[in-house]
Amino acid sequence: MRQFLLAAHPRGRAVRDEDFDLVQAPIPKPAAGEVLLRTRWLGFDPAQKGWMENFADYVSPMKIGEVMRGSGIGEVVESNSPDLAIGDLVAGPVGWSEYVVAQPSLYTRVEPSLPPTAMLSLLGTTGLTAWHGFFEVGRPRAGDTVVVSGAAGATGSVVVQLARIAGCRVVAIAGGAEKCQWLTETAGADVAVDYRAEDFRQTLRAALPRGADIVYDNVGGPVLNMMLEMVANGARIVICGAISRYETAGSPVGPSNYFNVVLRRATMAGFIVIDHTESFPRIRQRLTEFAAQGRIVWQVDEQVGFETAPATFRRLFAGQNRGKQVLRVE
Amino acid sequence: MRQFLLAAHPRGRAVRDEDFDLVQAPIPKPAAGEVLLRTRWLGFDPAQKGWMENFADYVSPMKIGEVMRGSGIGEVVESNSPDLAIGDLVAGPVGWSEYVVAQPSLYTRVEPSLPPTAMLSLLGTTGLTAWHGFFEVGRPRAGDTVVVSGAAGATGSVVVQLARIAGCRVVAIAGGAEKCQWLTETAGADVAVDYRAEDFRQTLRAALPRGADIVYDNVGGPVLNMMLEMVANGARIVICGAISRYETAGSPVGPSNYFNVVLRRATMAGFIVIDHTESFPRIRQRLTEFAAQGRIVWQVDEQVGFETAPATFRRLFAGQNRGKQVLRVE
Repeated sequence: MRQFLLAAHPRGRAVRDEDFDLVQAPIPKPAAGEVLLRTRWLGFDPAQKGWMENFADYVSPMKIGEVMRGSGIGEVVESNSPDLAIGDLVAGPVGWSEYVVAQPSLYTRVEPSLPPTAMLSLLGTTGLTAWHGFFEVGRPRAGDTVVVSGAAGATGSVVVQLARIAGCRVVAIAGGAEKCQWLTETAGADVAVDYRAEDFRQTLRAALPRGADIVYDNVGGPVLNMMLEMVANGARIVICGAISRYETAGSPVGPSNYFNVVLRRATMAGFIVIDHTESFPRIRQRLTEFAAQGRIVWQVDEQVGFETAPATFRRLFAGQNRGKQVLRVE
Repeated sequence: MRQFLLAAHPRGRAVRDEDFDLVQAPIPKPAAGEVLLRTRWLGFDPAQKGWMENFADYVSPMKIGEVMRGSGIGEVVESNSPDLAIGDLVAGPVGWSEYVVAQPSLYTRVEPSLPPTAMLSLLGTTGLTAWHGFFEVGRPRAGDTVVVSGAAGATGSVVVQLARIAGCRVVAIAGGAEKCQWLTETAGADVAVDYRAEDFRQTLRAALPRGADIVYDNVGGPVLNMMLEMVANGARIVICGAISRYETAGSPVGPSNYFNVVLRRATMAGFIVIDHTESFPRIRQRLTEFAAQGRIVWQVDEQVGFETAPATFRRLFAGQNRGKQVLRVE
């Protein structure tokens, strides 16, 4: 079987092919209580670059030669556990490996009423992050104005729809006319603003005549700074991600408008969703219900072929993905 | 009588003499229910520069020709109100004017058990700000490590002492050996770190081996950014002021380490203390008790002479004041 190992810590904007080694390895044997999974899908997230760089120190450091970390969906092909049978599909930390030995307790059964890849998108870390950040950190009230950056992304698009369901007015920021059209016509944003347009600032300001009660930031950099300029009194600023920081090595640009937390009595807060695993079953149930009712949609960008994992991962940083980036392994 | 009027909106680092007009005006007459105050002391705060610039838009804009706004202590010299008698001392918005007509309800009687200038320092906006920011925004727990910038200032020095009383470990940042000595020997900081020293960063890091649970920032700029680098999980970052922003015109430098609110699950929040006037009597009572018990000390830097108001104000931005900057008018 094949595996990708970490060959180098990425430097600068891009994740490079030479940051990984594609190697052959023997298929491992599960011990008592364990199962063998065949990886069926991999899911990709910008945070993985932080893990490779050891920037995101809430996880243990990644060492050179370690199997690249990542979530995915595996099919049980051998079972020494009473909890899982051959053919069962589970989601969890499979890594970039065609087979992996798994402790059943660390994995979640795939929700049978939705396509399997929903476990990596709507019901995966990105959807759980959207829910936790919006409701627990953002604390929305009906009628709030919510501005979301990276709004067409896997997390942002769920935030947009949850805000709409929660009775908020939603201003969505994304790059390009196609994404903006999807946001207003399909995801139900009240306004979509193209950050690549020349009149971005004026358009955003016009869309926020009374300021934003909630800022949900996935981007950082100049977009975050502009949103901070337009916060309403008592605003909650949810820092979820900073995809723009991957454009340069090292720390992201600091938001010079941070002092609006004083002038607007605002709060800026971050969170790590894996601190809140106890609430995941409840959140997944709600999101599954909304999906069944047709009140929430999600996009999955599925590439194919295990060997394309590095190239598929890079699509995130080039803004090429349409919705959650996944890879079908076979 | 004499008054200072706003002659120009300050630009750049300094408040200039030409930003003010010193003019003669007739002493006004109080109407029914009003009193005439003779200004005895003026108090100075960096926020006044924001008012002059109309940067701090939580107050109504200052117009050219308006009497310079500011707090102070007045003595009642004429009374048409049953609430105040001739000779009473009150604190409140007197402006830079030798006499002012006052509505008694907008003023607070001077606490008789302390020197009158305590109303502009420990019991004034700076002390109230220290209390509200530390307890309500910082939410301390005994044993927390608290790092305070601008720790020798009028607000910071009260935060240092409240943190000590609340059972916290206090790391105080100030400029120069004299201030640092005062902080450890008199104010009771556990460690004082001189931000002008070459080894500032290493010394600060050594003083925060487990990171800071509370950051109380009065400074902004590189000092804030360094403190953000050293926050503990779940830290509360209280943005109180940004004296460093006055070194350059316009917005302060953005803290590039803001993303630690995510990696450390931290919260950054600001506040405007005048939103919380309902709690001022209770806070003043507690601070007065601590002062009476000798558990809290405060410094007042008293200059003399009404005509020196602009020069006295500038002492704040040059770091020349030792404690709360006030001016005795006569």
